[in-house]
Amino acid sequence: MTNDALTELLSEIRDGRVSVENGIERLRDLPYMDLGHTKFDLHRALRNGFPEVIYGEGKTPEQVGEIFTQMGDRANILATRVSREMADHVLSVCPDAEYNAMGRTLTLTREPIAYLEGEIAIVTAGTSDLDVAEEARVTCEMLGSHARITSDVGVAGIHRLLDRLDDLRKARVIIVIAGMEGALSSVIGGLVSQPIIAVPTSVGYGASFSGLSALLGMLTSCASGVTVVNIDNGFGAACAACKINRL
Amino acid sequence: MTNDALTELLSEIRDGRVSVENGIERLRDLPYMDLGHTKFDLHRALRNGFPEVIYGEGKTPEQVGEIFTQMGDRANILATRVSREMADHVLSVCPDAEYNAMGRTLTLTREPIAYLEGEIAIVTAGTSDLDVAEEARVTCEMLGSHARITSDVGVAGIHRLLDRLDDLRKARVIIVIAGMEGALSSVIGGLVSQPIIAVPTSVGYGASFSGLSALLGMLTSCASGVTVVNIDNGFGAACAACKINRL
Amino acid sequence: MTNDALTELLSEIRDGRVSVENGIERLRDLPYMDLGHTKFDLHRALRNGFPEVIYGEGKTPEQVGEIFTQMGDRANILATRVSREMADHVLSVCPDAEYNAMGRTLTLTREPIAYLEGEIAIVTAGTSDLDVAEEARVTCEMLGSHARITSDVGVAGIHRLLDRLDDLRKARVIIVIAGMEGALSSVIGGLVSQPIIAVPTSVGYGASFSGLSALLGMLTSCASGVTVVNIDNGFGAACAACKINRL
Amino acid sequence: MTNDALTELLSEIRDGRVSVENGIERLRDLPYMDLGHTKFDLHRALRNGFPEVIYGEGKTPEQVGEIFTQMGDRANILATRVSREMADHVLSVCPDAEYNAMGRTLTLTREPIAYLEGEIAIVTAGTSDLDVAEEARVTCEMLGSHARITSDVGVAGIHRLLDRLDDLRKARVIIVIAGMEGALSSVIGGLVSQPIIAVPTSVGYGASFSGLSALLGMLTSCASGVTVVNIDNGFGAACAACKINRL
Amino acid sequence: MTNDALTELLSEIRDGRVSVENGIERLRDLPYMDLGHTKFDLHRALRNGFPEVIYGEGKTPEQVGEIFTQMGDRANILATRVSREMADHVLSVCPDAEYNAMGRTLTLTREPIAYLEGEIAIVTAGTSDLDVAEEARVTCEMLGSHARITSDVGVAGIHRLLDRLDDLRKARVIIVIAGMEGALSSVIGGLVSQPIIAVPTSVGYGASFSGLSALLGMLTSCASGVTVVNIDNGFGAACAACKINRL
Amino acid sequence: MTNDALTELLSEIRDGRVSVENGIERLRDLPYMDLGHTKFDLHRALRNGFPEVIYGEGKTPEQVGEIFTQMGDRANILATRVSREMADHVLSVCPDAEYNAMGRTLTLTREPIAYLEGEIAIVTAGTSDLDVAEEARVTCEMLGSHARITSDVGVAGIHRLLDRLDDLRKARVIIVIAGMEGALSSVIGGLVSQPIIAVPTSVGYGASFSGLSALLGMLTSCASGVTVVNIDNGFGAACAACKINRL
Amino acid sequence: MTNDALTELLSEIRDGRVSVENGIERLRDLPYMDLGHTKFDLHRALRNGFPEVIYGEGKTPEQVGEIFTQMGDRANILATRVSREMADHVLSVCPDAEYNAMGRTLTLTREPIAYLEGEIAIVTAGTSDLDVAEEARVTCEMLGSHARITSDVGVAGIHRLLDRLDDLRKARVIIVIAGMEGALSSVIGGLVSQPIIAVPTSVGYGASFSGLSALLGMLTSCASGVTVVNIDNGFGAACAACKINRL
Amino acid sequence: MTNDALTELLSEIRDGRVSVENGIERLRDLPYMDLGHTKFDLHRALRNGFPEVIYGEGKTPEQVGEIFTQMGDRANILATRVSREMADHVLSVCPDAEYNAMGRTLTLTREPIAYLEGEIAIVTAGTSDLDVAEEARVTCEMLGSHARITSDVGVAGIHRLLDRLDDLRKARVIIVIAGMEGALSSVIGGLVSQPIIAVPTSVGYGASFSGLSALLGMLTSCASGVTVVNIDNGFGAACAACKINRL
Repeated sequence: MTNDALTELLSEIRDGRVSVENGIERLRDLPYMDLGHTKFDLHRALRNGFPEVIYGEGKTPEQVGEIFTQMGDRANILATRVSREMADHVLSVCPDAEYNAMGRTLTLTREPIAYLEGEIAIVTAGTSDLDVAEEARVTCEMLGSHARITSDVGVAGIHRLLDRLDDLRKARVIIVIAGMEGALSSVIGGLVSQPIIAVPTSVGYGASFSGLSALLGMLTSCASGVTVVNIDNGFGAACAACKINRL
Repeated sequence: MTNDALTELLSEIRDGRVSVENGIERLRDLPYMDLGHTKFDLHRALRNGFPEVIYGEGKTPEQVGEIFTQMGDRANILATRVSREMADHVLSVCPDAEYNAMGRTLTLTREPIAYLEGEIAIVTAGTSDLDVAEEARVTCEMLGSHARITSDVGVAGIHRLLDRLDDLRKARVIIVIAGMEGALSSVIGGLVSQPIIAVPTSVGYGASFSGLSALLGMLTSCASGVTVVNIDNGFGAACAACKINRL
Repeated sequence: MTNDALTELLSEIRDGRVSVENGIERLRDLPYMDLGHTKFDLHRALRNGFPEVIYGEGKTPEQVGEIFTQMGDRANILATRVSREMADHVLSVCPDAEYNAMGRTLTLTREPIAYLEGEIAIVTAGTSDLDVAEEARVTCEMLGSHARITSDVGVAGIHRLLDRLDDLRKARVIIVIAGMEGALSSVIGGLVSQPIIAVPTSVGYGASFSGLSALLGMLTSCASGVTVVNIDNGFGAACAACKINRL
Repeated sequence: MTNDALTELLSEIRDGRVSVENGIERLRDLPYMDLGHTKFDLHRALRNGFPEVIYGEGKTPEQVGEIFTQMGDRANILATRVSREMADHVLSVCPDAEYNAMGRTLTLTREPIAYLEGEIAIVTAGTSDLDVAEEARVTCEMLGSHARITSDVGVAGIHRLLDRLDDLRKARVIIVIAGMEGALSSVIGGLVSQPIIAVPTSVGYGASFSGLSALLGMLTSCASGVTVVNIDNGFGAACAACKINRL
Repeated sequence: MTNDALTELLSEIRDGRVSVENGIERLRDLPYMDLGHTKFDLHRALRNGFPEVIYGEGKTPEQVGEIFTQMGDRANILATRVSREMADHVLSVCPDAEYNAMGRTLTLTREPIAYLEGEIAIVTAGTSDLDVAEEARVTCEMLGSHARITSDVGVAGIHRLLDRLDDLRKARVIIVIAGMEGALSSVIGGLVSQPIIAVPTSVGYGASFSGLSALLGMLTSCASGVTVVNIDNGFGAACAACKINRL
Repeated sequence: MTNDALTELLSEIRDGRVSVENGIERLRDLPYMDLGHTKFDLHRALRNGFPEVIYGEGKTPEQVGEIFTQMGDRANILATRVSREMADHVLSVCPDAEYNAMGRTLTLTREPIAYLEGEIAIVTAGTSDLDVAEEARVTCEMLGSHARITSDVGVAGIHRLLDRLDDLRKARVIIVIAGMEGALSSVIGGLVSQPIIAVPTSVGYGASFSGLSALLGMLTSCASGVTVVNIDNGFGAACAACKINRL
Repeated sequence: MTNDALTELLSEIRDGRVSVENGIERLRDLPYMDLGHTKFDLHRALRNGFPEVIYGEGKTPEQVGEIFTQMGDRANILATRVSREMADHVLSVCPDAEYNAMGRTLTLTREPIAYLEGEIAIVTAGTSDLDVAEEARVTCEMLGSHARITSDVGVAGIHRLLDRLDDLRKARVIIVIAGMEGALSSVIGGLVSQPIIAVPTSVGYGASFSGLSALLGMLTSCASGVTVVNIDNGFGAACAACKINRL
Repeated sequence: MTNDALTELLSEIRDGRVSVENGIERLRDLPYMDLGHTKFDLHRALRNGFPEVIYGEGKTPEQVGEIFTQMGDRANILATRVSREMADHVLSVCPDAEYNAMGRTLTLTREPIAYLEGEIAIVTAGTSDLDVAEEARVTCEMLGSHARITSDVGVAGIHRLLDRLDDLRKARVIIVIAGMEGALSSVIGGLVSQPIIAVPTSVGYGASFSGLSALLGMLTSCASGVTVVNIDNGFGAACAACKINRL
């Protein structure tokens, strides 16, 4: 709850325009919509700058469909980790939504998005990291930042990366996505001066331990100033990048 | 090596001012000073924006002392993870350096630091996280950002945190430092809209597993847009925060 | 075996009403029913206060069906981790049983349940934790405690939680259910004075490591007096809560 | 912050006795004492029923000494994880404090403690678990519950445990402390009907992995209704037990 | 290769009955049958007392079928980890084999088995451990030891176990099979004097980590003299038990 | 408590020689001596065949000294994990005890030990495993089995092992002690037919993870019938071996 | 990019045959073919000696098919981790490719392979390791080294291995493939003097932890000079072996 | 034991020059010297090409001193992991030995070493990896290969590495030593065509987990053909490199 809202409420109480009992009530009247199973936060945009996002995993297609139909006339919506099956259901009840199969996102754009000027670069080590990259890209776009993907520039072929450096240096923030040993964030971190957000992916096998090796590698990066999000969390990296881009 | 430097070098070769052999030689003439044991990178400031920083652990007091005396007339220096014993030696050969015992940093300020306007907030969950916070604060200052520490506002006493929200909202970037379950970054992440960099600390015992619980907690934070650095890595968080602050 | 039973048996032996050989026999005559594959404990209610509960996983539908038909005229039964397929079989042989699909429980209520006065509050961080919450709720009801679920009040939207505090404070015991970083138990633990039982869930991905991050987070909670049960163990939390509620 | 306090404050604003500006100020005027390094929470007793407790590890003897001298005339104090060296310093500045070397606790009792009627039983598997048991016992006493330790009744000599069952059954809550495989909580959990709080200890070697084996064993206990706290966390177990005992 | 065989070979060489070249050849002529994909060891019985056993996992139904048809007229065969599908194929080419669905074993008994006198007791904590117990039982029988299963006597109902103690004490070796916290081996280890072989099972969920908790619990058992085999390894436990029973 | 003792007690009650109250009392009169901190089990020899053994770690020199002086006139005593400092204290109060510095054992032999005929072979992979081997050897001797150590026959020099095979084959049970990859138990397991008890040791560094690699290697041994005890647990292996040797 | 290429380019610039702008452009003109999703590296053969290899996992059948059709007229191609379904698609668009179902490789041989003289020996512990061995064998052949598989010579039947030693000693490099405890590499490492590359496999169950036990066992091998690649990485081992064989 | 030796022995037996009994005896007369605690393998040089090496950790200074004095007149000796204290003792009894404090090696060179022509490059990511590099260098030299260390060329300053590429390309084998994320081996692996042996080091803190992050990173390297040895195992890497260099 913002400070301004509190100031206003207190003023109204002082002026007698709002009774004490009512004041307590209104402090309760929090800015979210309660669908029973989900408390959908309409004013989060005010508080931390973005609309509520729906995390598809662990929800039923019906629950997500209900959110889209109830909320979809008021706000833009971004749903992540949406399976093909869930998408099919939602599209049947909310045909204006758009499904991105690679990024597994479902979006609904009611309000035109006001784009910031700075661009976000999304770099992947391999082709297999593209789904995470796509989730990040769609998220950036929905949050008002343009984003461009540069893929398959892993460190085992360093010249492919060096070739793209000038492009990367034009971005305001760089999201680096890599599985296996996750070394790409260290190398880029040593070559550019922008903020870098590293996303370990579960790409790999054996000692990759479902992304653990990339995660540890990025956390212990010898390049200073690299920060890390959860394994395969393209969405989270995009959120962080957009918060930075808005500064 | 920057693109501009390459352009210049190629122009000189074309003009005959530099011979081919010499050109190759100069491509080798990379901008670092070689002390034998350490390759000290004088121009890193140009490349990613900060002076080279010395990581004290695993170096001998003599090695660090030599770096301070050789480099100390040309540049500001920041050494981290400096034990009291190492500090004593360096101060004996370079008396202008300053030791911060809590943050275990050693600094030498030859050039006046040009401070940016935006401030960085450093928040700790408990008193025991203060050494990491101090490392972060000193690093911020050396990199040109003012930083202020708010300590002991862990989530078990949520009102202590709510009380400080207005202060936090004035900062441009927030560094959140917490051990044990590391929940502070989730709570703050839900309350403010700035970029948040979370630092798990090794504070705790038993199932804390030397910071692992805080690390996992921060990585899986339900607040979107929180990014994480290595356990106890106050320095890395500060680097990332300053890169962001410079935007 | 209780002390009273032993006293009685010894008295009977002394009085000659029971022979020595018979006494040994009766010490063997333990209060459980042996179905071959399962030793069903009829008198556990006497000993630790609850009827035997059937853990469905690793049993065949036929085994569970047999237990329901053999025991179902004598006692109330609660089966947990019951798949839809298992439920279908049991309902075909014991039509009075009731299946709760979300909580995956199967119950049979032969005896009216005598409810205690105090209520148990069940709080979840997210919508995806609802299945665990439902398992806990059904268990509470079968064990004689009323329980109410408050869902989707995770710490990233702290105001949703604060809004419900008064309700929570009316409960006698609080069960907190959360996946990902599991921070909810720390925050609630700092706000209320009741006993809190935390249930980590396997909700999440990547560094959640199937509930490990939430488990560690809850074990290392900075709020004192939070106790923890196994990942996804809504049943166990309810048992503990009901034992406390009975005091 | 309690609801009552808020009601009162709002009433004062309505009545003009407190200005709006002042109201905001007072919402900030939270009930803790700020020693700079530590925010000491005077009113926590009101909020969750216990005085603030000092966790000694990671604090300097001087910091703890300052807390004792500043707070010690107003409230009872309990400090845990206090080394001999820290205790010596605190006793030198606050001679009324009492040091318990086995439990590593430091206590100061200014106010007479009002003891509850119910007793808490503390049971240990081995002699080496006694330090954790002692920490739990002292904590119980400071929080107003009498506690009694029964030691060295591990499951490898089950008759030693059976011998003590009647005693255990007289307690209102049972704290079970065990290292190695932590099986004691399962066995007791099957024999008594009270709430059981299990404390894994770091006693053991090799595959004990500093308490991990006991922790996992207790979390996966086949006895329903056992809840668990962090490794070696005698203090936390006592807090939970006292919260239950107060019901 | 045994010492006697070497002595004989060397004697033959000395006597000129075997040439040097031939001697080297015969040292190569090792006592196994080579099926290309598998080297089937006919004389292992001589060397370590048991026939070669086929581990079904990772082999194709065809490979196992070939072994049964090629070897089945010369020796008894025991195949473990045999899926229903693999069994169907083998039975189609070797109809005398017998499939045990619960234990997932496939056996062929060409030679009458000479049974030892001592019996092996197999004890399980729960109903869900029965498949591992059955694998152990069949293995014991094929290796010449009678075995009897006592199931569902887990430590949470200690009286069920105490009731069976006399039976257990009649066995020569005891195999204890338990999942979750694996405490059963500690309790039995404290009550009987026979060798105990503990088998952790993957029964459980969450912090059971697929048998890890039971494994660690058994390895750190406070009962001395308990030895442990791999998770779910009923076969290995039976081998060890039979080696002991033969002494 | 044995069945015979119960029969006798019940008979005495029936005959009136023991009153009911007294009977209950005597059921309590369990066969251990209570030193306050430790419950010393005098009759464990009767129950599982060996005298109580003292685990030195986590006990004070004074506690162990008290046990030796109080128990030492009645029984043989074996203390393990005894530091030099602890040994010095015990020897000062009980000069007849004997300290084995390599095995870190302290023994007192009041009763002549009746040795069994069969011998136990103790084999180590390297010189660094000798302390664990020595602990095992002393334990065997105290428990009535002769034991002989064969050291430094690790698998990287397989001929050293083959050279000793005949000796190993004369033993009744073989204890195999190895650190690093723990392969020795697999190789010996394939060469001999006796029961093998494997002891992983913490010898090694890096990926040895304090014995974890050897432990996992031994648990997953491809040689059937190898059983395993805890890391560095020479004592436990000896207990198991002696239980087997007694058959 | 090689030094020679740089020298040549610089010479051309000096001589005016290439303009500065053009020179920068050509430094960009890196030797790979960009298919959008994949950057296929045509000149890698020149740089590290082998053609680019396609890692099938995480790619769609269509992507791999496109690579084969676009590249397949210019170079030999090796694809690994190719599922049957992916193979079917590629074969439909590029019928000259060859699928190896056991090794899951897909190869296309346009250029005749020039084989080196030295041979690579591939040794497996069990039948179940054959798929990894086959991947290694095919890779060796595509990279120009003949390779031969010796299977099922695990350490539990050491004589099977000793029988094959002379064969192994004829190879130039030995690849050792084993699951479970991975002991085979230690034993072979002690018997031969060639370079050994060990491949842990995920064969096994329980404490094998999907190849972790074999991995740790090989890394901590007591035989000096054994090097290790990732779990199930037959391809990587073959690459390393061929690099060595080329020396 | 070599095949030739066996042929010769068999011939002697055939010719009657050696009796059968004697033959068996001589098969036992294996080529090692038995110091009681250690079996020192004189002929290992013949078998796998290198003299026996002493691993200092876990041995007493006296044991190592005895080996040097007993063996030192016959062979060159290399001892690793030698503490300063151990070195002092050995030097006191064998003054010709040489101690390398950084690499913690102790060497004795009785026989002149015949050096191979090819050189081994040793590359480290940071200054703190120098001790492992030095252990590798000394080992290479003792095994007959010249080795040169290039230090502090970690991937965060990629130009420092590119600058040294020509040097690296002249070596026959490259040992890459790195802690933290261990990315250096991936980058070098993509740039050169020689065999690469990667050594993870325990340099780092927090999520480095004592070298685990570097180990996993190297094992999952996206550069094909990189093989890995144990954490901090400079010695093992050197052994492997020298075996390769000898080809």
